Parts: sequence; structure tokens; C-alpha cells
Amino acid sequence: MSKEITSRESDYSQWYNDLVIKGGLADYSAVRGCMVIKPYGFALWENMRDVLDKMFKDTGHQNAYFPLFVPKSLFEAEEKNAEGFAKECAVVTHYRLKTDPQSKGKLMVDPEAKLEEELVVRPTSEAIIWNTYKGWIQSYRDLPILVNQWANVVRWEMRTRLFLRTAEFLWQEGHTAHATSEEAVEETKKMLDVYADFVENWMALPVIKGVKSENERFAGAVDTYCIEALMQDGKALQAGTSHFLGQNFAKAFDVKFSDRDNKLHYVWATSWGVSTRLIGALVMAHSDDDGLILPPRIAPLQVVIVPIYKGDEQKGMIDNKVNELLPKLKALGIRVKYDDNDNSRPGWKFAEYEMKGVPVRIAIGARDLENNVVEVARRDTKQKMSVSMDAIEFYVKTLLDEIQLHIFNKAKTYRDEHITKADKWDDFVYLLDSKGGFVSAHWDGTAETEEKIKELTKATIRCIPLDGEKENGTCILTGKPSEQRVLFARAY
Amino acid sequence: MSKEITSRESDYSQWYNDLVIKGGLADYSAVRGCMVIKPYGFALWENMRDVLDKMFKDTGHQNAYFPLFVPKSLFEAEEKNAEGFAKECAVVTHYRLKTDPQSKGKLMVDPEAKLEEELVVRPTSEAIIWNTYKGWIQSYRDLPILVNQWANVVRWEMRTRLFLRTAEFLWQEGHTAHATSEEAVEETKKMLDVYADFVENWMALPVIKGVKSENERFAGAVDTYCIEALMQDGKALQAGTSHFLGQNFAKAFDVKFSDRDNKLHYVWATSWGVSTRLIGALVMAHSDDDGLILPPRIAPLQVVIVPIYKGDEQKGMIDNKVNELLPKLKALGIRVKYDDNDNSRPGWKFAEYEMKGVPVRIAIGARDLENNVVEVARRDTKQKMSVSMDAIEFYVKTLLDEIQLHIFNKAKTYRDEHITKADKWDDFVYLLDSKGGFVSAHWDGTAETEEKIKELTKATIRCIPLDGEKENGTCILTGKPSEQRVLFARAY
Repeated sequence: MSKEITSRESDYSQWYNDLVIKGGLADYSAVRGCMVIKPYGFALWENMRDVLDKMFKDTGHQNAYFPLFVPKSLFEAEEKNAEGFAKECAVVTHYRLKTDPQSKGKLMVDPEAKLEEELVVRPTSEAIIWNTYKGWIQSYRDLPILVNQWANVVRWEMRTRLFLRTAEFLWQEGHTAHATSEEAVEETKKMLDVYADFVENWMALPVIKGVKSENERFAGAVDTYCIEALMQDGKALQAGTSHFLGQNFAKAFDVKFSDRDNKLHYVWATSWGVSTRLIGALVMAHSDDDGLILPPRIAPLQVVIVPIYKGDEQKGMIDNKVNELLPKLKALGIRVKYDDNDNSRPGWKFAEYEMKGVPVRIAIGARDLENNVVEVARRDTKQKMSVSMDAIEFYVKTLLDEIQLHIFNKAKTYRDEHITKADKWDDFVYLLDSKGGFVSAHWDGTAETEEKIKELTKATIRCIPLDGEKENGTCILTGKPSEQRVLFARAY
Repeated sequence: MSKEITSRESDYSQWYNDLVIKGGLADYSAVRGCMVIKPYGFALWENMRDVLDKMFKDTGHQNAYFPLFVPKSLFEAEEKNAEGFAKECAVVTHYRLKTDPQSKGKLMVDPEAKLEEELVVRPTSEAIIWNTYKGWIQSYRDLPILVNQWANVVRWEMRTRLFLRTAEFLWQEGHTAHATSEEAVEETKKMLDVYADFVENWMALPVIKGVKSENERFAGAVDTYCIEALMQDGKALQAGTSHFLGQNFAKAFDVKFSDRDNKLHYVWATSWGVSTRLIGALVMAHSDDDGLILPPRIAPLQVVIVPIYKGDEQKGMIDNKVNELLPKLKALGIRVKYDDNDNSRPGWKFAEYEMKGVPVRIAIGARDLENNVVEVARRDTKQKMSVSMDAIEFYVKTLLDEIQLHIFNKAKTYRDEHITKADKWDDFVYLLDSKGGFVSAHWDGTAETEEKIKELTKATIRCIPLDGEKENGTCILTGKPSEQRVLFARAY
């Protein structure tokens, strides 16, 4: 593996691509805008998925699976949702290829196998799911429905980037149905909290919880709640969204229930999702110019042990010692690998695991054996320590916790330093240009003003913070009255 | 829930559909040939997936994810594979919908958003994966590649049935790359053994391991190994396949590696898969006219506890007792639910859990409390036993193992009774018509004869058994010489 990574300073965007490719997370594919998630990247996703899946189940949700395809007539039923996704959807029009008579060995679409109705490859599943829920819901006794789906979705984005924006991506989408508006709003907020908990405590990424402005709202939602994170280049990244859908989909698909009062009411809905995009956020928030830095709690590999030896005798002695250590580490639930591959030198291995962001590296040499110590190196701070082998497993266990916390605190310090206030337009622009990050400013509440600010600065309203205090002020652009600050940022 | 299930005798096919729908496993969808996997069915799939996934990882495989779409030029690269799947593939031709000027609120395919190259929705992923492996493999050091993918695939079948044959289905597909033919064949057989182990020991379904005849071989394979199971109507069902692909895909995608001798060689390949079809096999093999019968090791719910009481006082006493029992059962890893839902009567619950195939039902009434006993009912044999509450958890644990074994043995007895030998054509036809099952007969080894037998009897060669002995004989149809019996059956 080549260690040549572009530095953040010289080209942040290339640095990111280098990390994803050279770190073994993903690869470009032959399909425009689609990526291959490589084993190391997929192991990371599996860890994230397993934690989230447990959180969903612990909050009463079950998994199910709905069709990949949405017939056009269902797709267009909820008007705003359709409008939002029509511009970027993959459409299946035929169900067969045939031999191309003009070109030997080639195939062509069989014009006789045209579908009566086109099928949209799901960009999101509200339509197909609410059409299904119609058959599942008659009475208040059928509610709530608390269902989640792990799936692939397709949005035909024109500008794509590995993990951050791909034509196909993996995600989970929760779709719940409720008897009352209050219950649906509560669910929406509960799942936002689940996301914030996951992203902060497992991915070590501090987030701000908020509500989207109308411009940034999910197509078909009444309210979109979000968590927003900050990357090292000062740009924001939306890390998860939870939507209160009101009765929009129930009305579009005519889903009613008879309540205790025996009257028919439309059902209330939520949907919420996070995707493989989170991996992009993880890479951009924590890593450095030497490679990935992965938080221990979701790292595919937490500890790697590298032997340093000359000759078989030394190797044999180290092997014996490591074979004592491995079960002790594994017994504490630590994901550890002993890399005694003969084909590469320790220095090459050090660089490799640094690149891959393995949180802790343990090196053991012949002299270490004599002294009953090992060399422990942290990936995050690059500190090296000589540590006694006695009870090393507990030392490592504690160290992993410390690293998790340190990565979070570092990101939080950076994030907090990059939330600034602006009360004048010039300051606002200056802060965005010079410092980046979130700029907290007053806004007159109109879509037009937000649009205008975006045109002038490329910054959008990332959210109206949930914990924001009411405060009288004047809009940063128009000077009109405002009651709360909102967070602006340039964003991924 | 309505308990009305069509009996097997009156209409086997309708019985199957009733079980799937009324047992809550799956539902029809608005998309032709596609199903919705409901939470109960998906929980079953999750259990199956988790066991298989662990088996794959224990045999050295890693998961990855490849694109949903296969560009037409890649799809057609391996000629036989393309020919096999071209007739039944969904094709994406456009990437946008637009407002239909002729019809208010409707959308239409935007003719200006036609893809330069059509994209096939993967019916299987050899093409996209081998095109990717080309970039991953240079040297023998890059081999073997042992990768698996959990994914959805689409095959545009004309006649579909829930789980057994759906246009979209979920599966796993392993795709491995090797330096030698021997190693690839070994991998192919190893994964067949993994499948047989899983299907027999977890799904309680006895299988026969064998090789497919040319007619039944996977499109693009050199050899297709399979496991074949028998359903209660005497029809066979292919439960899993493992393919030795030779160098076919390496040649189609020009994937070579430099060996220790510094010469370039084409890479050897395997692929292997099982799908949600297995759920159909499970339902058809074990269930009865009262509903599903699920093997405990993969049942979403293994034990349900139903209280039988009059009034709050009795309910409170039972609650207390059950709250003692639950943690004891859970501590042994038993998946248990206490159904104290007030809205339905015990008899209704009994029928419901019978329908859903929950292996063990425990009923507790007020008098049981006095006597320190519970009523334990087995789903498979319908036996009821009065059992002391002392150490009930160990009783249940042992009972679950016993049920698992009993379900397997019952299916095996049935299967073994339905393997017969035929040496004359009339006997062959008579056995197929009267008894069904596998008929072991000699065959002259030609595709024409197999085709002719299929025309005459609807039976196909399910496999050439791996453990079959060499035996001289004459073909059941043509009288030509043969060296081994093969297994014929009508099949799903």
C-alpha cells in the first residue's frame, strides 16, 4: 500500500478520497455514481448497523422488507414527495433483453417487453409502504405500527462522491403509523434522540439537534428534524433526519382507522433514516493526514498486535506470548488481530494500520519479552507507551474507552470553536469565509431570504436548534424582525 | 385472525398461501410478482441470516457490497450467463420523470433523460463483481478473495409465488477467486457443506447433496452443486446451490494474476447462494393444517406464555409468577414472550400461536399456581403436559432441543420413504404419479433424454447424488448404458 495521502491543507477533497480508497473502505464502480463498499468499509457499516438495529428494537420497532420498485401511479400519489424525487429517479421500463440482430454477441432492450406501467427504483419508500399500510390498518387496535427497513435506495444525483453522495446507497428507513398527531411527533423526536445518541456515543461525533426550514424539509413532510455535524473543513453535514409526515401520506393513500369513538380518522405518520453517508462523516470528522482515525466502539478492528523479531526462535517466543494474550483480550470483547504475516516488514504494517485507523497497535519484540512489557501506540494521539504485560488486557480496555472519549472531545472542541454569532451582514460573510463552521444569526423566516442568502454565500440554514432560546433580533439580510437565531453553514 | 386454513389434502397450493399470509410471514404487494416480508417473516429471515453469516465468517469470508445495477456491456460479457438471465431482467432506461403535460398531477418518463447505456437490475452479481475483481487482483498474493454479499436481486419471473418464486428476492451470494482449480472446487464443496449443515441442523430439513445435470446448471457455471429437499406434496425443492465457475468469468472480464512462476494465469471462481426461498421450503416441509410449525432454533419466538385468569387478583398472582420465570428462561437464551394482552381470550391466543408455529406454549391458570405446575403444549406433536414449575426453564430448554430433533426426524422419515428406485419406464411413471418424491433411475447422460423425460412426466433430474455408488444399468427412457443412478422428481 502506498502511504501517499494528499494533505488536508493542500486539497481537502482529495485527502478525503485518498482515505476512502487507500484505507480500503470503498472503490469506484463501473456504474456511474455507484460505489463498491469493500470488506473493511462494510465491516464498519455492519458494526454501525448492529448498534442502530438494537437501538431500534429496544425502542419497540421491528424490521420488515418492502419492494424495491414503486409503480409510477403510487410514486406520484403524494404530490410533494413525487415532485421532490421525480427529478432524480431511476426508471425501469422493460423486463427483458434480447439478442441484437445488428451486433453479434450484443443484447438490446426487447421493445416487446415494455412494462405497462413504469417502475421507479425506490429513492425512499413512503409510497410503497403507505400503500401497504392501507391493508394493515383498520382500527386503533392496529396502531401504532413501528417498522424499520434496511435497504438500498437510488437517487440519480449528478455530482457524486464516495459515501457522501452516491446514486445507490444503503440506509435504514423507519416508517411508523399512529393514531394521534402527538404520538407521531413524540416518535419523530424519540428517533432523533436515538440518532444523536448513536452518532455522539458510538461515532464520537457531536451533533446539533434542530428543525429544518421549509427549503430544506423532506419532500412530503410537515416537519423535518435533523442532527447536524461539523467536518474539519468547516462545512456542515446532515447526519440523520426524522420526519413528522402529518397525515400527508395517509391522505394520499387513503389510510384511515376507526377510533374508539367509532369514527374514521386519517393515520399520522413518521419516517426517519440514516445512511452509509455517515461513514463519509466519520472519515471527514476524525481522520488526519496519515490516514483514518476510527472510534474504537465501531472500529472493525480495535487492536492489532505486530511482532518484531529476527529468526524463528524469537518469532516462536513472541507467538507463545501473544497466544496467551489473545484470549484475554477477546474475553473482554476486544476485536483484536495478530498480524504475523511474514511477507511484510513491521514498518510497513505500522503504516498500514495507521492508514486504516486501527485505534491501538501493540508491538512486541524480543527484548520486550525479557522485560515483560509491550509497546502500545494510540492511533489518535500517536502516543507510544511501554506497558507491563501483566493485566495488559485491562489496560487496553480502559485505553479504548479513553480514545473513544478523546476523539469525541477533540471533535466537540473543534465544533464548539466553530459556532459563532453574527449580527451584521459583513460579519456574517466574513465568518463564513474566514472561519467556516456554524454561524448563528437571525433570519426573517421566509424561504425567499434563505434562498437569497444561499445565492450570496452558498450557506444554507442547517437547522433551527431545538435548544435555541427565544431572542428578539433582526434578520441578517433583510433587517426584518426575528425571534430566534438559526444556524447557517456551507454544507455537504 | 381467522383460523380458516385450506387443508393440504383439498388444495396444497392454497394451504401454502394461507399459511404464509395468515401466519403473518408475507403479503402481496402492488408490484407485480414482488412481496412484502412482514415483521414476523423478516424476524425468521434475520435468524437464518445471522446463523449463515456467522458460518460464512467462521469459514474465512467477509461481507462487501456491490452495485444494484449492471451496465448492459458488462451484463453481456459472459455469454452463457447473459443468455440465461437476459429473458427475465428488469432494465433501467431513464433517470428522471417529469410532469405529464397531458394529464394533471401525473408524471411521465422524461425522454430527454435516457441513459446512454441501459442498466440491468442485478439478477445475480457475477458480472459486476468480476469486473471489480479485475482491479483487485494482480498477484497470487491477492488471492484467494473470499467475499459474500447480502442483497436483493430481481428476476422477472412470469409465474410467481410468495417466497418460492418472486420477481425480487433477498439472498446472499458468495463470490470467491482462487489461484487454482483445485482450490476453487474445494471452496465450492465446502460451501455446499455449510448450506447442508445449516438447512439440516437449523431448519430441520434433510437434504441430498448432488451435482446438477447440464440442463439444470447455473448459466455460466462449469459445475453446479446443490442441496435438494422434499416437500410434503412429494415435490422437490432446490434449497441452495454452489457453483464452480471455472475460468469463465475471469476470461470474460480478463482477470489474470501473476503466479509464483511470474506467469499470468486466469483466476478460478466460485459463487454460491441461498435466498428467502428457503422460507417457502420451511413452511411447506414442516407445517400442518392448523398452521406453521417452525423449528425452535430459528423460530422468531420459541415460547409463549399465556395467562388464564378471572379478575385482577388472579391476574396479579400469575403476573408475579411469570415475572419470576421470564428472566430464568431468557438467561438460557430462550426467546420468550408473555402475552397478557387483555383484548383477546386464551382460546384465541392458542389458535394464533398455533397458526404462527411457536414451538412451545405455556399456559398458567390460578389452579396451576396452587399446584406449582404449568401446562406445556408442543406445537409439533400437539402433546400437552403438566410440568412442575421448579426448574421449568431447563425442562423447556431440553424440550426445544427435542422438538428440533423431532421435526427433523419426521421430515427425514417422510423423505426417506419417498426415495424409490425404478428400472422400467412404467414403474418410473407410476412412482412419480402415485407416490411422488425422488425416483432413483438410470439415465444415459444426454440433455436430450432429460428434456424428453421432462416433457413426458414433468420430472427433472434434481441431482446426481454426491454419495451415489457407481452401478451399471440402462437408461430408463432410452435403454442406453449408464453408470450411476440420478434422482428425478417434479420440483418447485
